[in-house]
Amino acid sequence: MLSTGSALNSLLIHTMLAEIIAVGSELLTPFRQDTNSLFVTEQLNSLGVSVVFKTIVGDRKPQLAQAVALALGRADIVCVMGGLGPTEDDLTREAVAEALGVRVRRNGDLLAALYKRFAERRISMPANNSKQADLIDGAEILPNANGTAPGQWIDTVVGEHRKLLLLLPGPPFELKAMFTAECLPRLREALPPRHIARRVLKIAMLPESEVDARLAPIYTRFNDVETTILAHAGEIQLHLQCAKAILEVAQTRVNELASRIEEEMEDAIFSSHGESLEEIVLYYLEIRGATVAVAESCTGGLLAQRLTSIGGSSRSFVGGAVVYTDALKVEFADVPEDMLEEKGAVSREVAAALAHGIRRRVQSTIGIGITGIAGPTGGTEEKPVGLVYIALDDGKEINVCERNFRGDRDRVRWFASQQALDMIRRKFM
Amino acid sequence: MLSTGSALNSLLIHTMLAEIIAVGSELLTPFRQDTNSLFVTEQLNSLGVSVVFKTIVGDRKPQLAQAVALALGRADIVCVMGGLGPTEDDLTREAVAEALGVRVRRNGDLLAALYKRFAERRISMPANNSKQADLIDGAEILPNANGTAPGQWIDTVVGEHRKLLLLLPGPPFELKAMFTAECLPRLREALPPRHIARRVLKIAMLPESEVDARLAPIYTRFNDVETTILAHAGEIQLHLQCAKAILEVAQTRVNELASRIEEEMEDAIFSSHGESLEEIVLYYLEIRGATVAVAESCTGGLLAQRLTSIGGSSRSFVGGAVVYTDALKVEFADVPEDMLEEKGAVSREVAAALAHGIRRRVQSTIGIGITGIAGPTGGTEEKPVGLVYIALDDGKEINVCERNFRGDRDRVRWFASQQALDMIRRKFM
Repeated sequence: MLSTGSALNSLLIHTMLAEIIAVGSELLTPFRQDTNSLFVTEQLNSLGVSVVFKTIVGDRKPQLAQAVALALGRADIVCVMGGLGPTEDDLTREAVAEALGVRVRRNGDLLAALYKRFAERRISMPANNSKQADLIDGAEILPNANGTAPGQWIDTVVGEHRKLLLLLPGPPFELKAMFTAECLPRLREALPPRHIARRVLKIAMLPESEVDARLAPIYTRFNDVETTILAHAGEIQLHLQCAKAILEVAQTRVNELASRIEEEMEDAIFSSHGESLEEIVLYYLEIRGATVAVAESCTGGLLAQRLTSIGGSSRSFVGGAVVYTDALKVEFADVPEDMLEEKGAVSREVAAALAHGIRRRVQSTIGIGITGIAGPTGGTEEKPVGLVYIALDDGKEINVCERNFRGDRDRVRWFASQQALDMIRRKFM
Repeated sequence: MLSTGSALNSLLIHTMLAEIIAVGSELLTPFRQDTNSLFVTEQLNSLGVSVVFKTIVGDRKPQLAQAVALALGRADIVCVMGGLGPTEDDLTREAVAEALGVRVRRNGDLLAALYKRFAERRISMPANNSKQADLIDGAEILPNANGTAPGQWIDTVVGEHRKLLLLLPGPPFELKAMFTAECLPRLREALPPRHIARRVLKIAMLPESEVDARLAPIYTRFNDVETTILAHAGEIQLHLQCAKAILEVAQTRVNELASRIEEEMEDAIFSSHGESLEEIVLYYLEIRGATVAVAESCTGGLLAQRLTSIGGSSRSFVGGAVVYTDALKVEFADVPEDMLEEKGAVSREVAAALAHGIRRRVQSTIGIGITGIAGPTGGTEEKPVGLVYIALDDGKEINVCERNFRGDRDRVRWFASQQALDMIRRKFM
């Protein structure tokens, strides 16, 4: 779900609208996905341009020409990515020309450059490749530093409106270099200057509806700041963005809104500059000179894996045990056997014993114990799938949190690890 | 890289065309991407339906209605994903109704079900949520087992052509369950029967170029089987697909090609029916009545986490230790302290001692020890980032594998866990 401060407002910020068209039949299979558009969107946003549509179309000329014509009717800037190669399936040049009602002509300079490129590698150019020297009438060549397919830049007028049309190669490595070197300077020159300030705040383990209910009265009063709320599993992100004539003014407004949000949400906010929960937890542990060890049952190593995914985590994370069987709960975390028998492995008591046992065994500042039923099987009426106990022992007291997570095995395990990280954060923040 | 046996052949297979529309302004930011369409495409392909367009559109009614109207004009099946939530931004119901020229009506049964759902959780329903009881005229309700947003199924006629319109919730967890339980049976009934045979073979720890060089001479001789080669980190997938008038004939052709590939690749193939490496490893362990325990240093729990991500893994996986510090290598896996001092924590000897120690401590059939330098820091000239030792002790002998993985921290850790899984597989296959 995404909430924006005001639709009208975002029209004021972004006066120019873009559409991205990704070309390639492989992008319509279950195996491949366009990812270039994320990069292009980021670049366009930084110039104050909003992306309003993305279209993915196969290697068929009529469909591609239709998509381009449609995009020219509803966007100021159209980026067509892919279909510039030398094969029969590469139809972007012809389709764009058709949509614009102009011709494609073989360009002598481009053709010579292609021959030269192949000659330098001592291979003769396949006949097909000469196609890559076809230039749409009115287009400017965008040199490709990393491949044979040149891009094209078309600055034209369609029905009294100025339109910018960019033809870019599909391989990300070629596209990114060309966009940065060739398109950004041209776009900066063509577009009104923009100064955009940004911040990202993050909140763990609160439902999106609650976050939105508490924050909507605040961010809606900042009409000049675009607020985007993104919900992930166990995490809400708030993206703030403001465009002004002067960058400092934009930054001040973003910071003002961030402060108001921080006042309202208090310690629910774990990150105020985009850091991940793992990074924040390790940061707090390190500045407090504290160490952590884990004894994981149902999460099976996920919490340890998340903490150690951050470089330098060994400064605060010492390790722990994956105590999947009862025997290992005894062996590595000294859980009393009679407790396992009386209370069951999934119980408040065993979670506490795991946290306590692992902390004592490895002499860490805190110990975390997690036990639960991740599913899909193993649930009972009394102890259903999704029931998880997460315990934190800091040497003075043991806190145990009981949660009933909904969802599949992956989701239950993820939420349990997220809850554990948030408990550590709250202990040391 | 993607290689397809024959484009013409895939035209013969697919006669029904689909368009997928992903709704949500967040999908037009640099932060989020539609991934549902990959799942939906796979499901549609399995019914003989080709996806010809994907459109991503923001939470704005006119644009969404325009996209739906366009899709109805060029596809037989239109899947609209997202925008079924309770907020003002959730406009899919209204936009689809507008595109079809029909009305939306609040449905009493749906409303009652919503109230009941909230009541069961002892929370009162926010007024907004009643919006989720709005049903498009002519639509059938698709129950949502995992959320408050019901889907809608519309079987209608637009300009003499029968059209199927599916409204699905955006959260992948809700969408997948609804598509499988509600849409697949309806689509099977609505579509002409197709006889498509498929197989997925998987290969671990070989480079794509080697796999393709060895297999291209084989699969190119099977013109009626579409072969797609997908390269992931440490894993190559071969997707084989064949459509015939009679299913058995298609299945025979796919099996023939699969057999030829298996002959060529021998034991490099770990999966011949699409199973994951984790599943295969657990399967072999179980049929051999063997158990495994792990002692992980640089992978920090990743191997344990991957094994325990599979339901029922407790039958063969007993647990283990994340021995991030030297002290824990001693404490949980009995690595001799003088060995750590003399050879260093990242050494062939310590890997072997970890495998041996964890196996002895927990009395498992085999023990795995992993130690290495995941980076980005900690490398030296002698022991560079990416150097990993993976050891397997089966009680008779200890095998240690030394690898130099290239890439970032995530990639080094992933490859190390992949290598460990492949070693277990080769031991028990």
